Amino acid sequence: MAVPVVSFTPTPDQLCWTFGGADPVAEIEPGTILEVFTEDCFAGRVRRTTDLVSEVCEFPFLNPQTGPFAIKGAEPGDTLIVHFISIEPARDWAVSTTVPLFGALTSTHLTATLQPPLPEIVWIWELDRERRTCRFRASKGDTTIELPMDPMHGTVGVAPANLEVRSALVPDAHGGNMDTPEMRAGVTAYFGVNVEGAMFSLGDGHARQGEGESCGVAVECAMNTVVYVDLLKQTATPWPRLESDQFLMTTGSARPLEDAFRIAHKDMVEWVADLCELDIMDAYQLVSQAATSPLANVCDTNYTAVAKVDRTLVPLRHDPYASAHRRARAVAADHASSGSLD
Amino acid sequence: MAVPVVSFTPTPDQLCWTFGGADPVAEIEPGTILEVFTEDCFAGRVRRTTDLVSEVCEFPFLNPQTGPFAIKGAEPGDTLIVHFISIEPARDWAVSTTVPLFGALTSTHLTATLQPPLPEIVWIWELDRERRTCRFRASKGDTTIELPMDPMHGTVGVAPANLEVRSALVPDAHGGNMDTPEMRAGVTAYFGVNVEGAMFSLGDGHARQGEGESCGVAVECAMNTVVYVDLLKQTATPWPRLESDQFLMTTGSARPLEDAFRIAHKDMVEWVADLCELDIMDAYQLVSQAATSPLANVCDTNYTAVAKVDRTLVPLRHDPYASAHRRARAVAADHASSGSLD
Amino acid sequence: MAVPVVSFTPTPDQLCWTFGGADPVAEIEPGTILEVFTEDCFAGRVRRTTDLVSEVCEFPFLNPQTGPFAIKGAEPGDTLIVHFISIEPARDWAVSTTVPLFGALTSTHLTATLQPPLPEIVWIWELDRERRTCRFRASKGDTTIELPMDPMHGTVGVAPANLEVRSALVPDAHGGNMDTPEMRAGVTAYFGVNVEGAMFSLGDGHARQGEGESCGVAVECAMNTVVYVDLLKQTATPWPRLESDQFLMTTGSARPLEDAFRIAHKDMVEWVADLCELDIMDAYQLVSQAATSPLANVCDTNYTAVAKVDRTLVPLRHDPYASAHRRARAVAADHASSGSLD
Amino acid sequence: MAVPVVSFTPTPDQLCWTFGGADPVAEIEPGTILEVFTEDCFAGRVRRTTDLVSEVCEFPFLNPQTGPFAIKGAEPGDTLIVHFISIEPARDWAVSTTVPLFGALTSTHLTATLQPPLPEIVWIWELDRERRTCRFRASKGDTTIELPMDPMHGTVGVAPANLEVRSALVPDAHGGNMDTPEMRAGVTAYFGVNVEGAMFSLGDGHARQGEGESCGVAVECAMNTVVYVDLLKQTATPWPRLESDQFLMTTGSARPLEDAFRIAHKDMVEWVADLCELDIMDAYQLVSQAATSPLANVCDTNYTAVAKVDRTLVPLRHDPYASAHRRARAVAADHASSGSLD
Repeated sequence: MAVPVVSFTPTPDQLCWTFGGADPVAEIEPGTILEVFTEDCFAGRVRRTTDLVSEVCEFPFLNPQTGPFAIKGAEPGDTLIVHFISIEPARDWAVSTTVPLFGALTSTHLTATLQPPLPEIVWIWELDRERRTCRFRASKGDTTIELPMDPMHGTVGVAPANLEVRSALVPDAHGGNMDTPEMRAGVTAYFGVNVEGAMFSLGDGHARQGEGESCGVAVECAMNTVVYVDLLKQTATPWPRLESDQFLMTTGSARPLEDAFRIAHKDMVEWVADLCELDIMDAYQLVSQAATSPLANVCDTNYTAVAKVDRTLVPLRHDPYASAHRRARAVAADHASSGSLD
Repeated sequence: MAVPVVSFTPTPDQLCWTFGGADPVAEIEPGTILEVFTEDCFAGRVRRTTDLVSEVCEFPFLNPQTGPFAIKGAEPGDTLIVHFISIEPARDWAVSTTVPLFGALTSTHLTATLQPPLPEIVWIWELDRERRTCRFRASKGDTTIELPMDPMHGTVGVAPANLEVRSALVPDAHGGNMDTPEMRAGVTAYFGVNVEGAMFSLGDGHARQGEGESCGVAVECAMNTVVYVDLLKQTATPWPRLESDQFLMTTGSARPLEDAFRIAHKDMVEWVADLCELDIMDAYQLVSQAATSPLANVCDTNYTAVAKVDRTLVPLRHDPYASAHRRARAVAADHASSGSLD
Repeated sequence: MAVPVVSFTPTPDQLCWTFGGADPVAEIEPGTILEVFTEDCFAGRVRRTTDLVSEVCEFPFLNPQTGPFAIKGAEPGDTLIVHFISIEPARDWAVSTTVPLFGALTSTHLTATLQPPLPEIVWIWELDRERRTCRFRASKGDTTIELPMDPMHGTVGVAPANLEVRSALVPDAHGGNMDTPEMRAGVTAYFGVNVEGAMFSLGDGHARQGEGESCGVAVECAMNTVVYVDLLKQTATPWPRLESDQFLMTTGSARPLEDAFRIAHKDMVEWVADLCELDIMDAYQLVSQAATSPLANVCDTNYTAVAKVDRTLVPLRHDPYASAHRRARAVAADHASSGSLD
Repeated sequence: MAVPVVSFTPTPDQLCWTFGGADPVAEIEPGTILEVFTEDCFAGRVRRTTDLVSEVCEFPFLNPQTGPFAIKGAEPGDTLIVHFISIEPARDWAVSTTVPLFGALTSTHLTATLQPPLPEIVWIWELDRERRTCRFRASKGDTTIELPMDPMHGTVGVAPANLEVRSALVPDAHGGNMDTPEMRAGVTAYFGVNVEGAMFSLGDGHARQGEGESCGVAVECAMNTVVYVDLLKQTATPWPRLESDQFLMTTGSARPLEDAFRIAHKDMVEWVADLCELDIMDAYQLVSQAATSPLANVCDTNYTAVAKVDRTLVPLRHDPYASAHRRARAVAADHASSGSLD
């Protein structure tokens, strides 16, 4: 199986800050393996505890994307298939911070109050890529705590619809900054194509992240990531969906948070009705009892909710997206055995 | 260890429909095992697919509680400890339904639109208590699907503060209808005491429930439940918390859903700061990376969110609530070995 | 027209802190004029700028109600009619404050953040009852500003449905702490009756209040208030409505605020469809172009929105509530000319 | 006073569908009078009751803007000043509709439910430009109702910040589709400049609109509009503000609606603190008692709230924006007396 492989490491001036509106860094064929480097959300500018975001970063130059990649033949109405073969921290450290008036447990520019912001603090996390851990070091006192590494991409998506260009900090129907820990290696993500070429990009790697990302910032790190990118023609996907060997997942990004929940669960009900050949009300009942609801973020411009169904619980009558996930897994296995992976 | 055991099965006229405002059915000592029967949320009136809630049930006589039990010596400022030893379906069937203008994926009396309600449908689920499964039978077509049983109580709580009496359909700071699947056997729940005697009650058993309870109704069934009830004096608990061998959990019940999230996560940050002896900002950082956020319900009068931390990830400097959970587990083990459990 | 007049000034121990759950202070006939005194929301305890609410007041003893009054013959399914003949400040001063973690422009116990509360400040407003003004005196600097007096009751309602007892701080379908400046003299309010006797009470007088009540506290003062109370049998009113000579108004109390808006506007659409004999979609169109939407409060347990239609714009085919407002205005005119009013 | 006058009527292919991302149709000097034609929100395609939006319109080609106009010398950090000299319907009819899954009293793509949409109906309103009325004709029955004309622009704004391009259907910090009836002749609007040239455009004329725009569509019509456009250097305006002879107004656009309220009221508190030289807490108190809160829209991508203060109530120590409104009024008066206005 001769799958083309494209490698790309952006130079600083090639970093992309939006979904939509940017020229492609490359055009690739459907069915290509992309090996890319992604910078961290601070473009690598926060490297020690004295590097305050408010001092070393400059809006809107946050959350740099690697891409966009134009996919040949992609048109509105198609679905872009993105399978994560591997996501590996590119450095032995990662960073998290508080950012003034950003996060779930503070007032913000939108949830506006007259209170002063919380203190601005930077935490440098040590990554042990052998032992797959990330070490937290408290800013006060000498506590250190080791958490398992669970690498993921906070931001993945395509150019938005409606002629829009959105900041890479925004999650919406085009994907973007959804910040779900479910976007990990082994997962296939599906995005509806809105413009010619789809214009796929990704960034915002996290060594790990809690659900909801309550302080607004995960364990942020640069990543070496390998994805398999494919295309399914004439199949619409209104909101990003994910699939793993075990789970089907849908997403919604909106405010208030219950609207994000509604979008994700309505999409899951309709997807299950289709895959299991059930009446919509029967699917509603089944999903109500079978789904879990792991939140993604409750801090970004839109909040993101995930609906998740264990496929071993729900007997599918046919495979989603013409078995795209299964085929991508085979490509990934070949790629691994070919030795091109670290 | 001579733990007193009190058994109670309510007669129909002893069912309780509120938190607060009801005379206790019994007074118990702190450190008592309660063996109770709880009716299902429809008071057992929906037994076949032709029993529509809108026809056979009568507002506000829904979600009957077993209780309240007055706990001797409980006063405002104390914490009530409720450990679930076992939760066992009392029948070999359970029921779920849609209820007009109730649920997450429909307009409601509060999210009011001019659209007509969804169809009203009843599903009878067959419970296999040996194999620990519940069987879904589609209303259209002949699909049946078996899901694992995971029994829980949707409604557990104490009398509310502020002189209020709340319907048993409402979740709030007093607990009540939180509808979280985390309220299962093996878990200890903590409730702040608001009135003399605390006035503990429970009901609304579910053979299983998805997170968010999107259609508004779980797999509802009568339960035989055993709880160990204890009291910790002079320790406040603003919002219900849960503890299991593996997890610490906090809850928030509010609208919009992000406020429920904020309550739960702020409480978790403060709890972790206390238990791990961390500065509040360090606890904020740690919880942001370590917590999961399994939703409870997105359909009730208030929505309920849970923040959850794996205690193996977070080195506690002291046990929560003076080791109440550990002691309750010992009581439960004794009770099991004494043969009084089924 | 021999309208019975009942006068009532509560003693401190007769103050009522809830809707529902309290014994009536008196039973009155439908068609009675009530002359009552209402204490301010702080029960008169905040009298100078050094009287901080957090020090001189005690939860839940806030927002004392005068009442409840049982209305003879009132049953669930009826509508209680409350016409405000006059609302007059009982003192020559009023008070406003900030309350820690309460208000629209601060985090709160529900919109929970890790930020400290805003400063707690008390403002004493001077009332000139001749000139109908209230004078603001800045806490810093020597600015004073005179605003027009526009007296109103923040809290008016009946006992709630569903066996509940609600704090007098809560607005909901039973009325309660709606905090709308529209509740002024000359207005008739309609409340659905939920329990026998309806159990009407009122309090929380404001010399004036901005829409939204952003800091959470209005220009709070004790009031001498005259209302005409009547009953319309077998006519349901799901959410409180108001009527003046010029306007029809509906209310909704919920969170998030758009749900309060939806409740009020849906009710207005249905009311206009009925009164103008229009199809519901035509009424939707008409109300969309004709209504104004003056917010009531964005700080209480539920937020309250008002939908308002100028009746001179909308040709009614019949008078609302069997011309209850018109008849109440006649009673008020008689009462005024009989000299019993100041 | 030789104020330059620029007239512009877009050809169909000159219509602009976004804020940001479009080349200017003209560059103008600060201090220019613009005489423009704006198409209605359906680009004139809905002209009779059988022209359903879902059939005759095509996403994203809705809400066409006239513009953008580049303002010479405008840079980020400046404020664009837009004074509405006149807004006059360009036709003797206007149109309103329901649009499937759009509006406040229906589920939508974001507030997603499983219910079917409301019926799609078109209403043609007759405009009498002499008598300043618009006539509603019911779709069922023969009711007609005449409402006063109150022409306004639903959509006015500048290019957004953060490299974004937003659909003309979106209101946000750059202005856009705020849909407030306050945007009428005699009003001066202030917008923070985000990009070089500011890139001002406007459209979406309404012969009148209720507050909240509950059905999602106002009385839509093409307009002949005259605005005076000026620039204030080095003065930031985070969210759009409005000023009339009588009122100061601030706006916020966000979801949930309480966040829109918070943005508008926080901005008003800070503006009043500045203009009246008051401490921020004193301004909070004053605005809480003095402001009204007329909603703009509760149907668009973001909801828009307005905070409004009667300037005769609040003694300003200095004029806002260096008396820009007063100067614009003088320009408007000159322009009127020069005979170039109808």
